[in-house]
Amino acid sequence: MAIHHFQPTHYHTALGAHEPVLHIESGDTVFTTTVDNAGYDATDTQVTPGGNPQTGPFYIESAEPGDTLTVHFDRILPNRKIGRTATVIAPNVLDPGYVAAEMPAGGRAEWHVDVEKWTATLLSPQTQLGAFTLPLEPMVGCFGVAPPRGQAISTATSSTHGGNMDYRGFQEGVTVYLPVFVAGALFHLGDGHAVQGDGEIVGTGVEISFDVQFTVNVIKGKSINWPRAENADYILTAGNARPLAQAVQHATTELVRWLGELGLKKRAAHILLGQAVQYDMGNVFDPAYTMVCKVKKSILREVGVWE
Amino acid sequence: MAIHHFQPTHYHTALGAHEPVLHIESGDTVFTTTVDNAGYDATDTQVTPGGNPQTGPFYIESAEPGDTLTVHFDRILPNRKIGRTATVIAPNVLDPGYVAAEMPAGGRAEWHVDVEKWTATLLSPQTQLGAFTLPLEPMVGCFGVAPPRGQAISTATSSTHGGNMDYRGFQEGVTVYLPVFVAGALFHLGDGHAVQGDGEIVGTGVEISFDVQFTVNVIKGKSINWPRAENADYILTAGNARPLAQAVQHATTELVRWLGELGLKKRAAHILLGQAVQYDMGNVFDPAYTMVCKVKKSILREVGVWE
Amino acid sequence: MAIHHFQPTHYHTALGAHEPVLHIESGDTVFTTTVDNAGYDATDTQVTPGGNPQTGPFYIESAEPGDTLTVHFDRILPNRKIGRTATVIAPNVLDPGYVAAEMPAGGRAEWHVDVEKWTATLLSPQTQLGAFTLPLEPMVGCFGVAPPRGQAISTATSSTHGGNMDYRGFQEGVTVYLPVFVAGALFHLGDGHAVQGDGEIVGTGVEISFDVQFTVNVIKGKSINWPRAENADYILTAGNARPLAQAVQHATTELVRWLGELGLKKRAAHILLGQAVQYDMGNVFDPAYTMVCKVKKSILREVGVWE
Amino acid sequence: MAIHHFQPTHYHTALGAHEPVLHIESGDTVFTTTVDNAGYDATDTQVTPGGNPQTGPFYIESAEPGDTLTVHFDRILPNRKIGRTATVIAPNVLDPGYVAAEMPAGGRAEWHVDVEKWTATLLSPQTQLGAFTLPLEPMVGCFGVAPPRGQAISTATSSTHGGNMDYRGFQEGVTVYLPVFVAGALFHLGDGHAVQGDGEIVGTGVEISFDVQFTVNVIKGKSINWPRAENADYILTAGNARPLAQAVQHATTELVRWLGELGLKKRAAHILLGQAVQYDMGNVFDPAYTMVCKVKKSILREVGVWE
Repeated sequence: MAIHHFQPTHYHTALGAHEPVLHIESGDTVFTTTVDNAGYDATDTQVTPGGNPQTGPFYIESAEPGDTLTVHFDRILPNRKIGRTATVIAPNVLDPGYVAAEMPAGGRAEWHVDVEKWTATLLSPQTQLGAFTLPLEPMVGCFGVAPPRGQAISTATSSTHGGNMDYRGFQEGVTVYLPVFVAGALFHLGDGHAVQGDGEIVGTGVEISFDVQFTVNVIKGKSINWPRAENADYILTAGNARPLAQAVQHATTELVRWLGELGLKKRAAHILLGQAVQYDMGNVFDPAYTMVCKVKKSILREVGVWE
Repeated sequence: MAIHHFQPTHYHTALGAHEPVLHIESGDTVFTTTVDNAGYDATDTQVTPGGNPQTGPFYIESAEPGDTLTVHFDRILPNRKIGRTATVIAPNVLDPGYVAAEMPAGGRAEWHVDVEKWTATLLSPQTQLGAFTLPLEPMVGCFGVAPPRGQAISTATSSTHGGNMDYRGFQEGVTVYLPVFVAGALFHLGDGHAVQGDGEIVGTGVEISFDVQFTVNVIKGKSINWPRAENADYILTAGNARPLAQAVQHATTELVRWLGELGLKKRAAHILLGQAVQYDMGNVFDPAYTMVCKVKKSILREVGVWE
Repeated sequence: MAIHHFQPTHYHTALGAHEPVLHIESGDTVFTTTVDNAGYDATDTQVTPGGNPQTGPFYIESAEPGDTLTVHFDRILPNRKIGRTATVIAPNVLDPGYVAAEMPAGGRAEWHVDVEKWTATLLSPQTQLGAFTLPLEPMVGCFGVAPPRGQAISTATSSTHGGNMDYRGFQEGVTVYLPVFVAGALFHLGDGHAVQGDGEIVGTGVEISFDVQFTVNVIKGKSINWPRAENADYILTAGNARPLAQAVQHATTELVRWLGELGLKKRAAHILLGQAVQYDMGNVFDPAYTMVCKVKKSILREVGVWE
Repeated sequence: MAIHHFQPTHYHTALGAHEPVLHIESGDTVFTTTVDNAGYDATDTQVTPGGNPQTGPFYIESAEPGDTLTVHFDRILPNRKIGRTATVIAPNVLDPGYVAAEMPAGGRAEWHVDVEKWTATLLSPQTQLGAFTLPLEPMVGCFGVAPPRGQAISTATSSTHGGNMDYRGFQEGVTVYLPVFVAGALFHLGDGHAVQGDGEIVGTGVEISFDVQFTVNVIKGKSINWPRAENADYILTAGNARPLAQAVQHATTELVRWLGELGLKKRAAHILLGQAVQYDMGNVFDPAYTMVCKVKKSILREVGVWE
């Protein structure tokens, strides 16, 4: 159960079998930092090219293909005061007719991020919104492991290995589960958002650098098909694909499988989800979209399959 | 502001320019009943063929094409004790490979609906779920007006006129807004659910007959493109289309338009939604899927466009 | 085997259970005319509002729900010299980024249609294309029967009942098969194109009025799921849905079924189609898109299931 | 204009920046071989793991990011007598309801490939099809260059860099154009099919090893967005994406751009394509689908933009 302090010196814009930056054991905890989507660090200095650069990869010693890696986000905290967003809803999220006729001009917006007051406040441009303020909800936009088949996959998209899911629920206190495709799993993370709307429909959250603490564990011999997670109230699965309905299919199928692993027979799992399932929408900006399928732990307890 | 008591004697399985059952004025309130999706009434007697049969249509005197009709759901209450659901997740909501290999057998489930305890409890089939119980969340699965262009559209699907949206948020206390395409608007409603999972992924909620009270108002000379609604906390828009991402496009575009009508310039509306928008998933079982795009009234108040 | 001459005096912009304009028998032939998509007739006079107005419906005496109606297009001939097209590719057919930044202005184009030379020649606007000339390929853009469930469905879209499929293969000499949903089938047709690109990507072909001759036959007790057709070389099925991949699913499944009806067991049908299937793309402009799945009659003859 | 004879000793199942097997110059010709999708060579011996293993990559000396690489397929010839196919249409190509209820059992089929008679004949399994025979149409299923952003992308899918497009038109005599993302371009090819139905709907063509001859050329300073090609009669573009309609968007937009490069203004290009465009469907089995958009060279000549 070692504790590691790791300060990155280079970053990756594809998730792949890159040279590990650190070898750690199952159970270990890592303190590290992430730069923002454009490669700017805690001092707001660009230290690497943009495109969701990732800290890592971290090699977890016992992880082998066919295992599952869990990562608990112990702490996710903006480590500077300036955040930035895009300002125009992506054309793929609007009616084609609106896009052809009515799109506003682009540009960047700047936000003041205050971790004392726990707020993000719009600084510029000057609009009717004035000093528009939202409560912080820090989340990790992009994280994952090296994908299968010798691939290296852009951090602009997502798949079975995780990636750029931009799901608001990937917050401090959440445990994520990732399939292991290569020896050491090779965990990467980055693209922190101080706050974000559902879908990341302008293509950014309030992009910011983070101080991060996470703890890994390897579940030997257990294989999963898609990223999973649990928080205090829910178990959830993330399907990453285009079109959006296929992301629904992947997430739903994976949650049905999970209920099966918990001991529910198929018929029971289908009946339960039919009336109790919930969905959240992740990224609808990337090449692959993300849908999250979830069910309350209280319901699983009621039917005796969760402690 | 008259109050009408209307007991239906026939029903429609398409929303269209059928003979009105009642002529009412803007501001009037109607007490009526709906049968369940299969045409069974409060006594659990089949009184009409199945397929989401609708009560109505109601002709609202001053409504003309280009107006908007608002309907406040004053009361939505199950009026019998038995509800029914399907038991298998629809094949379009699961991975094709799972569907090809792993689908459980079908059949119906019965639920005891108790409006005193405010619960729905699984009665049959006998499964590991035992007497699985969920709190009630009564909602109207299908409602809408006569569509444009002389069409009559099946209550198995949805479009700009409303229809079978199966959105859990269409509950008591909500005000819905519908575009008016024909004189009198011709409002229909039916397909009540005592409770339902997101997406109606088994193709049913807990299907049940309702006692309903609703109040209509006509907004003259105001036209909208898609169904809208407001509840205590949110304003929201519903996009109805396949594929699912197109439902996202319609709902998002309509909410951008609404913010414009409230006085936000485009650039401000895009920036605000980028970090504050939320989405809920309605029906993903029907020919047309439903996505809801919403924003908190508290946020609109903060930026001065909501009283 | 009567021959009918019918001159329409009114038209419909939804396919539905409208009052029949003529009652005919299975085996009968009808000579009639169609107006163009905008309601202009052989004299280029607007005689009805636009929106793909349809001639009909024709009531075929013996046709009952569950039967199949065949319609042989004996003759499809432009009956005036002027045709019109839109000039801008629809935004749903182009990349959202292109649509946001690069769309040209709209407007109409006029074409000279010459049935002697069998050509369509661009008259206006004046562009680099000059007197751009294409050979004629007259086709019926929209035809079908009254849909099921009391529906009336806009002639801007398509479904199991046919409708606005805009498939270039629906030409003179082709026999189409349509499912019968109501007594008399209620056949409609209109929206003639002198020539059209695949997909109708500008939203129009060279729109023109037609002289039409067609012959109907009822196949009693045979039910089909989707429109089918045969020409000299192919049997084909049309799937009408969004998204486009679902149109592929419907068309493929229907052709598998057709091969089954011809006597091929499933395994043989799958193997054959795997290496011999062909697809054509119909309309990708409408709410529902169209894909055609086809196989050569020569191949069916080779394996002994076609005479 | 050197000629190279290259016999591969290892293969790749992802397209990426692998160590080049050969450095060649623009204008050079290469004679080489490809193994089949499962890694079997001309002697039907498995020499590498399956998954569309690729021969290459070939480093073309002058190619730099932002250039275009052309590859002329001089010769594509099956070099053994046995080919194999899957036998079941993929579940994503059929209606979900059909998949849930009616899928036949799987298994492999073997075909005798005869380059003298130019035929592929079904050998097994024994079905009603008997010795079903199709004419050969040899095509390259998968080819492409190293993708951008340090990615390595599985040969099971496709994108801007090419990949597993399975388009029947990529035959001998065709010239393909590929965007160059890395120094040397790094051209790979493999996955030969003796014949294939549109869409590769069973997930395979008649899979076979090839003798291949190809000639490369670099177009300096010219950048394209998607794979392009030309044959004797057509220029064409390939869009690779899910959903299928997005593949249509990419291909159409790229052909509009190509017409612009040829000198047609946007308005003229849109009008021309509206009535003269054609589409072919490539792979609908992979994660990314392929649609091809094309226009006849004779039409381009008529309007003076093709020599």
